[in-house]
Amino acid sequence: MPELRRDGLLNRWVILSPGRFSRPDDFHPDNSPSPQFPPCPFCEGNERLSGPETFARRATVTAPDSPGWQMRVVLNRFPALQSPAPPHSGGSSLEPSQPAFGIHEVVIETPQHLPLSATHPAETWKMLLEVYQQRLWSFREDPRLQHALIFKNHGPTAGASLQHPHSQILVLPKVPTQVAEEWHAAEAWYAAHGRCPRCEQLQQEIDRSNRVVAMSTGIAVFCPPASRFPYETWLVPRRHDSHFENAPPDLLADLAHNLAMLLRKLLRLVPNANYNLVIQTAPLRQARSDGFHWRVEVLPRLTGLAGFEMGSGWYINPMEPEQAARELRSAE
Amino acid sequence: MPELRRDGLLNRWVILSPGRFSRPDDFHPDNSPSPQFPPCPFCEGNERLSGPETFARRATVTAPDSPGWQMRVVLNRFPALQSPAPPHSGGSSLEPSQPAFGIHEVVIETPQHLPLSATHPAETWKMLLEVYQQRLWSFREDPRLQHALIFKNHGPTAGASLQHPHSQILVLPKVPTQVAEEWHAAEAWYAAHGRCPRCEQLQQEIDRSNRVVAMSTGIAVFCPPASRFPYETWLVPRRHDSHFENAPPDLLADLAHNLAMLLRKLLRLVPNANYNLVIQTAPLRQARSDGFHWRVEVLPRLTGLAGFEMGSGWYINPMEPEQAARELRSAE
Repeated sequence: MPELRRDGLLNRWVILSPGRFSRPDDFHPDNSPSPQFPPCPFCEGNERLSGPETFARRATVTAPDSPGWQMRVVLNRFPALQSPAPPHSGGSSLEPSQPAFGIHEVVIETPQHLPLSATHPAETWKMLLEVYQQRLWSFREDPRLQHALIFKNHGPTAGASLQHPHSQILVLPKVPTQVAEEWHAAEAWYAAHGRCPRCEQLQQEIDRSNRVVAMSTGIAVFCPPASRFPYETWLVPRRHDSHFENAPPDLLADLAHNLAMLLRKLLRLVPNANYNLVIQTAPLRQARSDGFHWRVEVLPRLTGLAGFEMGSGWYINPMEPEQAARELRSAE
Repeated sequence: MPELRRDGLLNRWVILSPGRFSRPDDFHPDNSPSPQFPPCPFCEGNERLSGPETFARRATVTAPDSPGWQMRVVLNRFPALQSPAPPHSGGSSLEPSQPAFGIHEVVIETPQHLPLSATHPAETWKMLLEVYQQRLWSFREDPRLQHALIFKNHGPTAGASLQHPHSQILVLPKVPTQVAEEWHAAEAWYAAHGRCPRCEQLQQEIDRSNRVVAMSTGIAVFCPPASRFPYETWLVPRRHDSHFENAPPDLLADLAHNLAMLLRKLLRLVPNANYNLVIQTAPLRQARSDGFHWRVEVLPRLTGLAGFEMGSGWYINPMEPEQAARELRSAE
């Protein structure tokens, strides 16, 4: 039974989810695609091999859990979280523990296994971003759910265990440490200065321009000053909003265009780059905030996380974001 | 020039160290040893290929930077930190920045490249732990240095770029987030409860016994309740002390014995396991504390860190520490 545990002294929670060791893993040492063996649970026609469908986009009306979909959201068959909530198992103050109640969904981004594209065309990104939004609106209806972390792992170095293009949503009974810390810091900044700190940062980035990769009507694309990874890039709405699910269709289209463009540039610079994509948005139960500002993070995983990072909570990045932005700007 | 940068809202620092991209990397895709080509800078006889020696253990008196050593500490030729301190480059409150002043040393653990042992005999561990201690005492003499993070990356998944057995010491101008947070939480706990929280946790682990791997006169070896990784194991002195460098010789011998034993067991369970070893000890400038308790962490890197971990600051661990301890106890 999945369980949430925290080290008694550190604000560091761990989701213990035994059973996930037995999940399928179709990455081979040579990282070659294996579309036929074993059968991919995410391919069109194999719907019975994945978890039940919670949502789908279909061009025409076809039955749930059957072919004909464009994108499909299913419950993870090897969930890190468990629904419904099991009884509380206790835990002392030095060993806080609670059931890892929550929802673990997989968004299957295309019906076809191949090509294993690291980037989609802008139209696919737009549909995917819309699906994320629709899931967030749905999760907001359950008052027990506190936060939805939306992320995509592309490639084995970035933690993907299946090749078929997909992303994941972990809907949690607590707001994770990093999100909660940013939320509180942003609210405190707003209370002290009367403006959103990320809006201010955005203006600084636009003024300096040396870390800017691209700038469209609605979206600023830049390498953040304290980038953790080479080519780390943030896509930030230029107009303040705390909740990604509020973004209007034209902004989603703009974001989709920039995402497709950024990933094409990244792959031009580093063929076969593995990356994580993370949506940093407000917790589900929070009302609109003038301090917190949503964003999409693209985190290429070209360097490892070693003993230093594990022991310090800090990062070593061998590439200055100013150089990363310069290279990304001129790529393609 | 290396630089320390912090995200304006998160207490997350990054060491930007351009130039480290050009460091040597002798891991091949098949992870086979390459003792001859290119010449290993850590092998006896190749002293001119590594940085200058800052310390060495030699069985008989031989000249610095020449053969005859048993263990050798050198300045990293591709340092993440820079010494001496460059002039301060400024940074706004939203983009705090400071020069990454500090020391980056490499401890070469054996004169021979082969065997690429993941674990040393207990005598080698003892000498290595003594070398760590001696370096810590030396760093304490420079008041600008705030913390020394000692770690070992074994294998490419754990972040090692060279095969020759070695560990690293990063001596920092600030106490890293994770260490500072634990220090403050431990002091607060002591102030509130009148006892060390880790001493209390240790007693709980001994009483429960289901997460204990081994117990000797001086050292408790157990899998912590909120383990981040499968087979994560902590080696904790049973008698309270805040500073690893205070450990007496008999305790070091005890720790060395347990480290050798633990890693043998781990490698029996997971042949060729990659791992990080981290020493969590008090900051250099802190006096002895009744609240903070030093330890050694062994962190096997069998599972990846993916978008979830990057976006939340939390971990997903597919193995309960109770099972990990059971397997480690019965291994070998």
